[in-house]
Amino acid sequence: MALQPSFADALSRFTVAIPSWGFSPMGTRFGTFLLGDEASDVYRRIDCAAQVQAATGITPGLALHFPWDRTDDLRALGRYIRDRGMRAEAINPNTFQDQAYRLGSVAHPDAGVRRQAQEHMLWCVEAQKTLEAPYLSLWFADGTNYPGQGDFRRRHEALLESLAPVHAALAPGHTMLVEYKPFEPAFYHTDVADWGTALLICQRLGDQAKVIVDLGHHFQGQNVEFTVALLQHAGRLGGFHFNNRKYADDDLMTGSIDPYGLFLIMRELVKGERLFGQRLETVSYCLDQSANVEAKIPAMILSVVNVQEAFAKALLVDEKDLEAAEHKGDVIAAQEILRDAFLTDVRPLLAEFRRSRGLPEDPLAHYRSQSGRTAVGA
Amino acid sequence: MALQPSFADALSRFTVAIPSWGFSPMGTRFGTFLLGDEASDVYRRIDCAAQVQAATGITPGLALHFPWDRTDDLRALGRYIRDRGMRAEAINPNTFQDQAYRLGSVAHPDAGVRRQAQEHMLWCVEAQKTLEAPYLSLWFADGTNYPGQGDFRRRHEALLESLAPVHAALAPGHTMLVEYKPFEPAFYHTDVADWGTALLICQRLGDQAKVIVDLGHHFQGQNVEFTVALLQHAGRLGGFHFNNRKYADDDLMTGSIDPYGLFLIMRELVKGERLFGQRLETVSYCLDQSANVEAKIPAMILSVVNVQEAFAKALLVDEKDLEAAEHKGDVIAAQEILRDAFLTDVRPLLAEFRRSRGLPEDPLAHYRSQSGRTAVGA
Amino acid sequence: MALQPSFADALSRFTVAIPSWGFSPMGTRFGTFLLGDEASDVYRRIDCAAQVQAATGITPGLALHFPWDRTDDLRALGRYIRDRGMRAEAINPNTFQDQAYRLGSVAHPDAGVRRQAQEHMLWCVEAQKTLEAPYLSLWFADGTNYPGQGDFRRRHEALLESLAPVHAALAPGHTMLVEYKPFEPAFYHTDVADWGTALLICQRLGDQAKVIVDLGHHFQGQNVEFTVALLQHAGRLGGFHFNNRKYADDDLMTGSIDPYGLFLIMRELVKGERLFGQRLETVSYCLDQSANVEAKIPAMILSVVNVQEAFAKALLVDEKDLEAAEHKGDVIAAQEILRDAFLTDVRPLLAEFRRSRGLPEDPLAHYRSQSGRTAVGA
Amino acid sequence: MALQPSFADALSRFTVAIPSWGFSPMGTRFGTFLLGDEASDVYRRIDCAAQVQAATGITPGLALHFPWDRTDDLRALGRYIRDRGMRAEAINPNTFQDQAYRLGSVAHPDAGVRRQAQEHMLWCVEAQKTLEAPYLSLWFADGTNYPGQGDFRRRHEALLESLAPVHAALAPGHTMLVEYKPFEPAFYHTDVADWGTALLICQRLGDQAKVIVDLGHHFQGQNVEFTVALLQHAGRLGGFHFNNRKYADDDLMTGSIDPYGLFLIMRELVKGERLFGQRLETVSYCLDQSANVEAKIPAMILSVVNVQEAFAKALLVDEKDLEAAEHKGDVIAAQEILRDAFLTDVRPLLAEFRRSRGLPEDPLAHYRSQSGRTAVGA
Repeated sequence: MALQPSFADALSRFTVAIPSWGFSPMGTRFGTFLLGDEASDVYRRIDCAAQVQAATGITPGLALHFPWDRTDDLRALGRYIRDRGMRAEAINPNTFQDQAYRLGSVAHPDAGVRRQAQEHMLWCVEAQKTLEAPYLSLWFADGTNYPGQGDFRRRHEALLESLAPVHAALAPGHTMLVEYKPFEPAFYHTDVADWGTALLICQRLGDQAKVIVDLGHHFQGQNVEFTVALLQHAGRLGGFHFNNRKYADDDLMTGSIDPYGLFLIMRELVKGERLFGQRLETVSYCLDQSANVEAKIPAMILSVVNVQEAFAKALLVDEKDLEAAEHKGDVIAAQEILRDAFLTDVRPLLAEFRRSRGLPEDPLAHYRSQSGRTAVGA
Repeated sequence: MALQPSFADALSRFTVAIPSWGFSPMGTRFGTFLLGDEASDVYRRIDCAAQVQAATGITPGLALHFPWDRTDDLRALGRYIRDRGMRAEAINPNTFQDQAYRLGSVAHPDAGVRRQAQEHMLWCVEAQKTLEAPYLSLWFADGTNYPGQGDFRRRHEALLESLAPVHAALAPGHTMLVEYKPFEPAFYHTDVADWGTALLICQRLGDQAKVIVDLGHHFQGQNVEFTVALLQHAGRLGGFHFNNRKYADDDLMTGSIDPYGLFLIMRELVKGERLFGQRLETVSYCLDQSANVEAKIPAMILSVVNVQEAFAKALLVDEKDLEAAEHKGDVIAAQEILRDAFLTDVRPLLAEFRRSRGLPEDPLAHYRSQSGRTAVGA
Repeated sequence: MALQPSFADALSRFTVAIPSWGFSPMGTRFGTFLLGDEASDVYRRIDCAAQVQAATGITPGLALHFPWDRTDDLRALGRYIRDRGMRAEAINPNTFQDQAYRLGSVAHPDAGVRRQAQEHMLWCVEAQKTLEAPYLSLWFADGTNYPGQGDFRRRHEALLESLAPVHAALAPGHTMLVEYKPFEPAFYHTDVADWGTALLICQRLGDQAKVIVDLGHHFQGQNVEFTVALLQHAGRLGGFHFNNRKYADDDLMTGSIDPYGLFLIMRELVKGERLFGQRLETVSYCLDQSANVEAKIPAMILSVVNVQEAFAKALLVDEKDLEAAEHKGDVIAAQEILRDAFLTDVRPLLAEFRRSRGLPEDPLAHYRSQSGRTAVGA
Repeated sequence: MALQPSFADALSRFTVAIPSWGFSPMGTRFGTFLLGDEASDVYRRIDCAAQVQAATGITPGLALHFPWDRTDDLRALGRYIRDRGMRAEAINPNTFQDQAYRLGSVAHPDAGVRRQAQEHMLWCVEAQKTLEAPYLSLWFADGTNYPGQGDFRRRHEALLESLAPVHAALAPGHTMLVEYKPFEPAFYHTDVADWGTALLICQRLGDQAKVIVDLGHHFQGQNVEFTVALLQHAGRLGGFHFNNRKYADDDLMTGSIDPYGLFLIMRELVKGERLFGQRLETVSYCLDQSANVEAKIPAMILSVVNVQEAFAKALLVDEKDLEAAEHKGDVIAAQEILRDAFLTDVRPLLAEFRRSRGLPEDPLAHYRSQSGRTAVGA
């Protein structure tokens, strides 16, 4: 199978941002295991992301998290990023760690706490402008642990009120991403629990607000690719947080548990462009995973490769034949068409694509040879 | 505890409709067990519902299902209903049983099949007018069993197109209820899978379209009362299908598995009226359960009693104290307030209420004494 | 990649039985759609299975279901099977359809009903002997829909008592398979709900009782391959019912939703033989799926191909390298080893294997050319 | 309703142990909120538990966790406990926090790490003897995050080998409790994932090993009361960890989300004694919850009250009538019997019981009056 120009074009336009926090110590509520590959500050974390970019060539974007990545000089930070051939893609405000946030942040019953969260987000909007990061990526831990702890409607209204000035402060062309999650760390209800809630919020805020889909933030059995298609159809698909899970929000390496599900999601994106004119570049793609037992940089590289392979397989789907099968109600033929794409070993095609772009053919091997490290200790 | 006037007033305004299909033979895909209490036609089914109404006094409304309840003379059917002191509340079109619907109805790839479904719904809109039933209650089995079988977006657009003329044909003051369900009988995707999808559809159709919440149509762990509150806040809560489940859409007696969850849902409705001015009567309450192993009429009566008790307990919640606890972040106090309401044995209060309205104090005992039947064989 | 002898040997020893009921009309509780490819009696169903065997060459075994497959002359049935180059593998008694079974069969509170179920199973044991079918495959719909409907312990004891004489009647070398399922058609509890229950039952019954794993009979998130490994380690893994699901017991084509999960299960079987000396042939492999919207024979063929491909990929896993990675705790290396096997396109290898055995290279294409049918209408 | 002697006797024999770790700072992986009521060492934690005992009178037992509760002088610790009118009930070894345990403890691929875990458990067995604590309560975080990371069977064998000497070292009359959990902190597989696995392990270890049921360690939809009944029937029910959850292992206050489910579990215990001769005292009852947003001592008290109320309601169930309903298959009557017990407000009965034993009638009010604290700040 030879590399087709349209195939190469699509591959060249598909990039995945790397989260700085993916190189910090990460654990579970039962503890954190250190492998010695943790990065202690934002500059070390950018260096790690740059290694992922050197290995894969499709991860120029960075997702930053404040205050975790705070420095005295944002402009210097911006230069540091650009000097490594990268760019800031998303700014993530943290409104869950301060002790003030025990009962929430943007939906907290106390106006003072809400203001604290809002001011941090407004600061992040300015950081967006300074760093030229097109996305403000919002996830809220807000929720309650018990029935009666808070009123859903009062909290919902408080949340809308907290966010309205933030949306209004966005630079033209910048996008606010609203993330949903059904549970954890709130265990009875979460104020932005599902995509329907996120959609309602975006509709109320305005056109620059869109929904971001974190693959691990769904109920068991939920059809994520259907949600992706609907959000895109409604003009509200803003981005992705890629990872994988078997149970809850496990934040495992993308593609490590359900590679076929990842392929089906990628197929909706490819189809969105091919059949419905929704350009790939209008969506932000970002990893969001946390390495608890594995080496961090290789885990990122492997995830990027898994996403890219799923995307490449999606490009192979014969949508015209599939549409014909759909109209005939020929379920078996439809299965065969998807099988053909998914079963194809796209590794040679991707090696050719990388070669043609001057990139390492095998990202993980390249990283190992450059870093002189084996995978275990990063 | 004495019966307060405000309490009696709320109880007197809370009614629950009875589904005619609840008296038909019902089973699982593994078979149907007959107890001898199945009603063979719509008139017998109305008679059954009238017995539930005689026992409980809060179930004057009927949900009808077409073509299952079809008769030659709809006007005669209306008279039969009124003569039994009842009224038609909801009309439910069936677009899933005809062989034409193998690949869907309103979202079927073939325009002819979509038209067939649409025409049946339009017929039902006319039946609504004839029978003066304020609700057209729509549930679609539409979906696919396999990836690739159908395109989500094409099907979504087909569905919107199929429904638009139906919405347009509604009488003023009548409401179209759109029901969601994550799976079954479609096993890969369902075209109206969740409340977010139903909301999007209603927004596109117009103001007379609202979402109906079937308690069994949620993922495990999903917070149903939160969804209820949000839908009401968005002005799109149209109605309920009451039942209970442990796993999937089990259609068990309402309140039989999770009575506390039922209480929490009722509390949102009571709060919607008390704190947010959303009158109880603007929502349609209807049972939707299917008796596989138990006697049908007693199962309905027990469910009505369970719903009414949950509602009565919700009326006992001290929302003012709860709001104070919320503001202080006093989770323990909030728990105590809810406990006080839920642990109260409201049976004496309800007996007093029924007595004051000339109703049987114990609905199930009344039914047994009237029917001369023990519960087993109905 | 060339076909290794050890690879060919393993492939030649891996067979999958076909269930007769897979060619009967099948549906959901909402109805059954007919494609015209339904087989009306056991002989037509055997003919269908023979077509699957002609196409794939690895499905000589038949699973029969009584009374669905009942005939006057079991010996004639046996000859009919053998004449088509097939053999009976499993006998499945039906103890859920008779009206007597409303409250259960082997665990029914009434001794008379339990005896009815027991007698049918004993008849099936005799049928096993006549048809030389090594497996008696037991699945019970027994359970309750509501708390209080039945006592778990009394029912458990009744079940054990019902089964003991059946186990005692087995021919030497024959195996009783006990299947578990968490819910449906019983919605509150199932008497054989999970593998732990099935294991307890087998331990009580004796050495000829083993557990059968139906892929769809698990909770969401449950790690099925772990259960498979543990059961085999405990000497109680008896067989498989292959299918796939997204939500509950959806009975979709095997490998159609989660092909990677299927591969991981196959890997445990391959490893069981390679590392732990548990021969592949000591386990019964059988499809158990029900085609609702797709053509039945092609659906079976596609499932067999999916299982065979997953098995072939499992054969490619380098278990020695994996063990080294495990000891070093090198999670990334372990991922790469599994990836290498799973991403390999084994279709050419399987084509070579089939060619070497005189079988059609492409089973589905062969079926189509022989039957003159397109997939839609079977 | 008057307090019956048999009722009072059962209530007086039902005690619930309090976990020391419930008074430590607890949080989620996103952070820990401090209310100022955290206890800094084992003596302060015992003081907290003693306050729960002073308020409820049914919590004399303590569950300790090592090394968290380690002191130089175990005998002095024992005296401190006894001086507060309490007793040690369970010793919980911690084999998940040390950096050595990244890949597991008892199932770790490295024999040295396994030995470290084993030695700690053997130390705990000695602590059991010193403190006269009848239960060694084992929970293992062991598992893997990715397919291929470890071999299920090798790990299972390592686990059995690690535990055998620990079981052998138990004092006569002492019990080893083996806890299962499907996921978290391991996200792909857990070495003791479900009750079946725990049962297999106990069977291999010997008669002093029993299974402990943590209410939050189940899949969604799993019928916990059925598991409880089966384990007791098999003679392997050893104890409980009480808490509640809506989604995963949320560790919320017991009875706060699903009080009816708690009642149904209690009913199996009461029935186990009444109908099957399995004394209540042969099982260890212990809270295991973690307060993230609420005051810790009141949270414990409220949970104890919830458990006691559920137990009291279970005592009210008319099992004789239920058995008759079961035999008649009268599902409705069965529902009514359970309803009668559950709907009864047992608070007056419990107040009478407490009064008769010289205990505070309202445990939470007593605590507040004694501590001079409102609930928010403990």
